[in-house]
Amino acid sequence: MSHLKEPLHPEGPKLSRIVAGMWRLDEWSYTQKELIGWIEKCMDFGVTSFDHADIYGDYRCESLFGAVLKEKPGLRGQIELVSKCGICLISNKKPFHKITHYNTTADHIISSVQQSLENLNTDYLDLLLIHRPSPLMDADETAAGLNRLIRSEIVRNVGVSNFTPSQFNLLQSRLDRPLVTNQVEFSLLHADPVYDGTFDQMQTHRIRPIVWSPFGGGRLFSSDETRAVRVRKVLNKLAVKYQADIDQIALAWLLTFPSRPFPVLGTGKIERIEKAVGALEIDLERQDWFALLEAYHGEPVP
Amino acid sequence: MSHLKEPLHPEGPKLSRIVAGMWRLDEWSYTQKELIGWIEKCMDFGVTSFDHADIYGDYRCESLFGAVLKEKPGLRGQIELVSKCGICLISNKKPFHKITHYNTTADHIISSVQQSLENLNTDYLDLLLIHRPSPLMDADETAAGLNRLIRSEIVRNVGVSNFTPSQFNLLQSRLDRPLVTNQVEFSLLHADPVYDGTFDQMQTHRIRPIVWSPFGGGRLFSSDETRAVRVRKVLNKLAVKYQADIDQIALAWLLTFPSRPFPVLGTGKIERIEKAVGALEIDLERQDWFALLEAYHGEPVP
Amino acid sequence: MSHLKEPLHPEGPKLSRIVAGMWRLDEWSYTQKELIGWIEKCMDFGVTSFDHADIYGDYRCESLFGAVLKEKPGLRGQIELVSKCGICLISNKKPFHKITHYNTTADHIISSVQQSLENLNTDYLDLLLIHRPSPLMDADETAAGLNRLIRSEIVRNVGVSNFTPSQFNLLQSRLDRPLVTNQVEFSLLHADPVYDGTFDQMQTHRIRPIVWSPFGGGRLFSSDETRAVRVRKVLNKLAVKYQADIDQIALAWLLTFPSRPFPVLGTGKIERIEKAVGALEIDLERQDWFALLEAYHGEPVP
Repeated sequence: MSHLKEPLHPEGPKLSRIVAGMWRLDEWSYTQKELIGWIEKCMDFGVTSFDHADIYGDYRCESLFGAVLKEKPGLRGQIELVSKCGICLISNKKPFHKITHYNTTADHIISSVQQSLENLNTDYLDLLLIHRPSPLMDADETAAGLNRLIRSEIVRNVGVSNFTPSQFNLLQSRLDRPLVTNQVEFSLLHADPVYDGTFDQMQTHRIRPIVWSPFGGGRLFSSDETRAVRVRKVLNKLAVKYQADIDQIALAWLLTFPSRPFPVLGTGKIERIEKAVGALEIDLERQDWFALLEAYHGEPVP
Repeated sequence: MSHLKEPLHPEGPKLSRIVAGMWRLDEWSYTQKELIGWIEKCMDFGVTSFDHADIYGDYRCESLFGAVLKEKPGLRGQIELVSKCGICLISNKKPFHKITHYNTTADHIISSVQQSLENLNTDYLDLLLIHRPSPLMDADETAAGLNRLIRSEIVRNVGVSNFTPSQFNLLQSRLDRPLVTNQVEFSLLHADPVYDGTFDQMQTHRIRPIVWSPFGGGRLFSSDETRAVRVRKVLNKLAVKYQADIDQIALAWLLTFPSRPFPVLGTGKIERIEKAVGALEIDLERQDWFALLEAYHGEPVP
Repeated sequence: MSHLKEPLHPEGPKLSRIVAGMWRLDEWSYTQKELIGWIEKCMDFGVTSFDHADIYGDYRCESLFGAVLKEKPGLRGQIELVSKCGICLISNKKPFHKITHYNTTADHIISSVQQSLENLNTDYLDLLLIHRPSPLMDADETAAGLNRLIRSEIVRNVGVSNFTPSQFNLLQSRLDRPLVTNQVEFSLLHADPVYDGTFDQMQTHRIRPIVWSPFGGGRLFSSDETRAVRVRKVLNKLAVKYQADIDQIALAWLLTFPSRPFPVLGTGKIERIEKAVGALEIDLERQDWFALLEAYHGEPVP
């Protein structure tokens, strides 16, 4: 089932419009059998793209997922694997790491991807992202690593995460292929990418964002900060009107943006995945959409 | 009389360097005869460009002006009409509007312009501006509407208002013709466009800004905020030196910018229009100009 | 001796990686003989580039240096002279200056350079910088002046100082030749250029920054502001590890940036110049580098 697949970029991969985020996979306490069941249900709902990073779960999440692919190798061709590299965490597994730091050298990128492929039991990534912009990023060096991965076909597409427009332009200037996305934080609690040029740049170049923390890490539903309370009030009203849940309304709001973002949902609960897919059917009226923007800002648009 | 007309853009319309702003036309309480007299006097002073928007005066100002053009159709060829679209206000005239919002779809843009033409009793606009950048602006969609208006010749030039440089680039990337201006707020109380890249972008592309609120909505003359007090003190000193009024000095300061802005004056008092035209003759000495910039910042330039 | 010379730009001049800053030359109280000795020692250490500006030392520093070149004309061919123009200071020497202001007209630029050449007893500058971005910079006008200086060969290369990326683009758009640098403030107390797009722009176009105040005007070593204290603590630790002085560690940190900046040291003490040159040999380990970045931010990288 692939009805949710859409191109991330004119030259880029097709991903499912709802992406499953793997950053807490290790905390779900699934047996391998349960995890297989969960993945297959995701696929039944059309959610075929899985967002990893080398560091998730203290460098363990990729392997948990990879064990599934080892047992069920037929799944690989039906799904899209995204992973990331460039952050170096303090970890028992990395005794040389004394401090959280970045490494965007060609050597590090290539060895990180090789490890990710081994962990995931696959021979290619559909998409590799540079996880964070490093002040030490030598664009020639980083691009050389990415270009080599592309040419060797073990990485089919490359992108970035948490980059400013000028950092994006810098890396792009050295690459043979277009960066196909910029994965950024974006939610009704954090709409900076709308105003700081990030989404403008992407829409200009017909690049679609992947967005993380679409519910502000859950604070949208639970926090008593003023903005969260204001937004939640409107979400509740619209949930009644559209006969939906408030997380569906929040997602529908994000999905409406003309840069057409792909939200990442970091949930192990299949019913939340199902609901997220349901949000794709909600067509928010323009004025309802602006009611949420007004709640975000705490005042009407000027 | 057209001695104030200057090109807004190499390919764009000629406007009078001082533009008459129509946003409070409905509050001036002019009879139609008085309004005709006022317009003709503006024209005698060389002020031939009139800045409208669909929404001004709760959607009424265009019609007041249009009644004049109906009575005096010969005026149309001697003046330039600017209007705007994209903001949707709560109004008795718009019962469906529950909240202030934006609409930059092709359908809305086109029907808004058709209404503006009907209100103004004209068959073309010299310049149409997208009034505010909408977070929901789909550049393909908005540009499709603008391209169609240009091709049908009912809009001769298009531009934007209150756009950041990246929003400007985004819309431009989809248009057949150059955006000829970005109308922004600018005054000795609000000089952000000098520092945030807005004027740099325009000078780079030889686009001239139109600037609104050149006196900060009058606060420059009356407010007791520190900046206003500081600036006014220098304005008063220079008014003596140049034998001019302080609003003329403030205008002369704006007019000196190398992006060569066109200020919009929203006044119904013809003597203020006359004075504004007089400001074009004032050639501020460089150090006097910097004395005003120093007052704006509250400290010497670094 | 020229082992420190590196290209500032693919088309640009070669400068010594450590640049000697002349802005306080008048305060060093050197006799001419002492100054000659100091300059020759700089050259022995490979520091052959000298950073001037018309205004340094109340318009006097260039002349002090020029007196040396008059006595020792053979030095000129072995060194690189950078100067700047565009700032007009209040000074006894400039009775017409009532206020600090900028002047980036072609006439001012050309006459300022002619005065600099006369002061310095030379017939060319290796590099001329516009000292500050002026809100009144008419790019056509400023570029006309710079283009003329380049064609007449009395200025071999042009650049800017303290410009934002959009100001840089604006001036570049009118020039026949590339701007070869943007000289900006940068240190472990002021790392804005890393985050505001300044260094990204330069790396993208293979332009290398020259950086002023690499020790925050000495505050890095003496200030009790929180950031300085935090950074100093790490510098001290690394000084032990690398058997170096803390100013060498601070310089090594700057030199590591992929935009490969040229620091300007405004010291008359030859031992500090020697140490700075020594910093070029220090190869900070990646995690030590990030320990300094963490101290700068007061928290680990995200």
